[in-house]
Amino acid sequence: MSKVLQFNGFEMNTPSHINHGLWVHPGNRRHEYTDLGYWLDTARLLERGLFDALFLADVVGTYHVYEGGRAPAIERGIQSPNNDPFLVVPAMAAVTEHLGFAVTFTTTYEPPFGNARRFSTLDHLTKGRVAWNIVTGYLPDAARNYGLSEQVRHDDRYDLAEEFLEVSYKLWEGSWEDDAVVRDRALRRYSDPAKVHEISHRGKYFSVDGPHLSEPSPQRTPVLYQAGSSDRGRAFAARHAEAIFLGARTEEEARTIIRSVRDLAEENGRGADAVRFFAGLNVIVGETDADARRKLEQILRYRDTIGYLVHFGGSSGIDLAALGAEEYIEFKARGHIESAERSFSDRRVREIVDHFDDPFHDPFFVVGSAGRVADRIEELADTTGVDGFNLVQYLSPGTFEDFIGLVVPELQRRGRYRTRYGAGETLRERLHGAGARLPEAHPAAVHRHAVAGVPR
Amino acid sequence: MSKVLQFNGFEMNTPSHINHGLWVHPGNRRHEYTDLGYWLDTARLLERGLFDALFLADVVGTYHVYEGGRAPAIERGIQSPNNDPFLVVPAMAAVTEHLGFAVTFTTTYEPPFGNARRFSTLDHLTKGRVAWNIVTGYLPDAARNYGLSEQVRHDDRYDLAEEFLEVSYKLWEGSWEDDAVVRDRALRRYSDPAKVHEISHRGKYFSVDGPHLSEPSPQRTPVLYQAGSSDRGRAFAARHAEAIFLGARTEEEARTIIRSVRDLAEENGRGADAVRFFAGLNVIVGETDADARRKLEQILRYRDTIGYLVHFGGSSGIDLAALGAEEYIEFKARGHIESAERSFSDRRVREIVDHFDDPFHDPFFVVGSAGRVADRIEELADTTGVDGFNLVQYLSPGTFEDFIGLVVPELQRRGRYRTRYGAGETLRERLHGAGARLPEAHPAAVHRHAVAGVPR
Repeated sequence: MSKVLQFNGFEMNTPSHINHGLWVHPGNRRHEYTDLGYWLDTARLLERGLFDALFLADVVGTYHVYEGGRAPAIERGIQSPNNDPFLVVPAMAAVTEHLGFAVTFTTTYEPPFGNARRFSTLDHLTKGRVAWNIVTGYLPDAARNYGLSEQVRHDDRYDLAEEFLEVSYKLWEGSWEDDAVVRDRALRRYSDPAKVHEISHRGKYFSVDGPHLSEPSPQRTPVLYQAGSSDRGRAFAARHAEAIFLGARTEEEARTIIRSVRDLAEENGRGADAVRFFAGLNVIVGETDADARRKLEQILRYRDTIGYLVHFGGSSGIDLAALGAEEYIEFKARGHIESAERSFSDRRVREIVDHFDDPFHDPFFVVGSAGRVADRIEELADTTGVDGFNLVQYLSPGTFEDFIGLVVPELQRRGRYRTRYGAGETLRERLHGAGARLPEAHPAAVHRHAVAGVPR
Repeated sequence: MSKVLQFNGFEMNTPSHINHGLWVHPGNRRHEYTDLGYWLDTARLLERGLFDALFLADVVGTYHVYEGGRAPAIERGIQSPNNDPFLVVPAMAAVTEHLGFAVTFTTTYEPPFGNARRFSTLDHLTKGRVAWNIVTGYLPDAARNYGLSEQVRHDDRYDLAEEFLEVSYKLWEGSWEDDAVVRDRALRRYSDPAKVHEISHRGKYFSVDGPHLSEPSPQRTPVLYQAGSSDRGRAFAARHAEAIFLGARTEEEARTIIRSVRDLAEENGRGADAVRFFAGLNVIVGETDADARRKLEQILRYRDTIGYLVHFGGSSGIDLAALGAEEYIEFKARGHIESAERSFSDRRVREIVDHFDDPFHDPFFVVGSAGRVADRIEELADTTGVDGFNLVQYLSPGTFEDFIGLVVPELQRRGRYRTRYGAGETLRERLHGAGARLPEAHPAAVHRHAVAGVPR
């Protein structure tokens, strides 16, 4: 088996995303995230490197668990401050032709009608290169920014997300028929009103009349990414997701999630191949192993272990600063990121700090020459079954530059990386090798045939 | 008096904005509104023409009054379909340096926290070239897209808008102190947490903890545009607006609104010059008067009077198709656009149809050579006291091209139009000739000094 792998650049509109503290590195441009130039350069670079997409994470609150408040997150720039991820996409789309853009948006805080129009607009402007990373939100701090007095409970969040998606599908797939827009100049007929439908959605959480404001875009529904890995999260993903960004911290865990989602997707009638799986990947590559080691040493000098603990606090709800090194941690709060729970249950505080202190604890970390990195990437893909990777940055744009300059040619030699983009293909066509629209087996497709009524 | 006038291009992310029906004109690119290229070309053109800003209108529902439903609006493309206005701005910002962007967003349907971050993000990406056209929303159809069973009543909408702005000001002006972001690499200190504050807003409509997610942007609060002209709307504008887009249909009405808002602004301690006034302006200019007349004749052939009646129906709540030509119209529904009410009360249906059938009924319409157009523009500015105009399009980009090619040089010769942009100035600096930030007399400024607390 020698599957061609897919790569996304992993980004966030913030000074410190995943590998924390490195904004202080003299070769890093991360602190320029508020400048358009930073994003234009990143997009051009990834397209030159034939990446699939730029994957934009997001949170709408501040991590406020470590040391009992948000001061450490703010001081260290740990995903704070941050800016809206949608708004960097149109500028990047203007300087690229093929690169996709996956944008994170949570279903918990803002109404589905506005979000559906935003994604339709992006899908138009990018000519079908947009994906939605569906998250349900887990920060109590975020909920309080949107007037919710306490975080919606975990399972309720998924119920709400289900209905949010149902509304979105009705708007994207069911409101405007394929031939609703006619643009007939002689008849002065832009659209055929008999083919534009209200959705008249009445549910537990939402009431939405429609019709959708946007005319049909190339993909209609954006490519659907999802990241949840709890039981409920997997069921949700197996029903809706076209691609999953695995929160797995071990190869075994990745295998388990992939197998379980594939089985569930098949049970749902979508087929075992309906979902693509991406793992996070940390790469430090050099001309030689020794060169890569030198880069690693420099990165370790700037890396900020406390930053990781701040992030872990936000994700898990556990304040490691309040516990002794030999204490065992205990997950109480439901609704935080489940992969943290699976990976770190019944571990001592000391072990977790060690984990974040040493990147080698992460099996999805590799340092070395292009050959060594490519070997490990192939191995990870073959042992876990992932279809691709979200490449995490240490230096922006250094990490992407190194990967594109050194690893991509090596993977291309091995037949593991594309050598060109397909002409005019949408992100969905590239991801699945099929059509621009969601397949008929996807639950959104029923809304194509179940139009809600005619316009009054 | 020979005031240098300011000009915005008036746009909307839709096939037919104000001058209806003209998307069928063979020289019009309006139907390309879903393409980035359309917006990039428009932005480059307006910057070449030294315009102040592109002003983007928006509605989040469909006009559904004329003929008792939304079919005519959909068929004729009357502001339907439409796409999100925010998302075309970053792409246009990437190909311009000076042009401003005014984006319409309604305070009635989506939460203030997300909107505040969107505007902060745009203000960063544009380096301080963004304005918010604050509207309160008036379409019952829009309310039903956001789960509101009936339109929030007119005065409630303004109460809600007041609180929406209060939350926004707290986030923009009060949450991050000026020197909160330090980016001290040696100390690993991106921000000083003692200078980043929760806003802890508890009001009638909103509960928002904060802190704001975005770091301080060049203007903080975007330039505030407003368009309401009811009594309540004027009071709101006199309190908040830095620029008003007048809905006036006569010169006398423009004078009245301007005088009234100036007086109110002065009463509010903001000074009579705190607000800039813009009127809509329709121009058909040619090399000669005869050439302009030929253009007009062609435009009239494609112009769609029914489209104007559809738009009027949505704005006024009155279905002219259901009334006889000699009937008087009667405004019942509060909460529709008040200028329609003022202009058309106690008029016969026939008179209104005539009004829309003949562009010469509008005093802010002028056709002729550059000299004639410039004469009229000067006259309108001097008699009404407006500071500038939102130039409405017939043809996109033909109207802007003609204006920039013919009228701008004429106005420049007369000292009525800038001959260059100021280097690096924000939209607010250009509009008011003062600082990048809101002045101290603006109600937002109190939140700079009334921080809500320290981060826990």
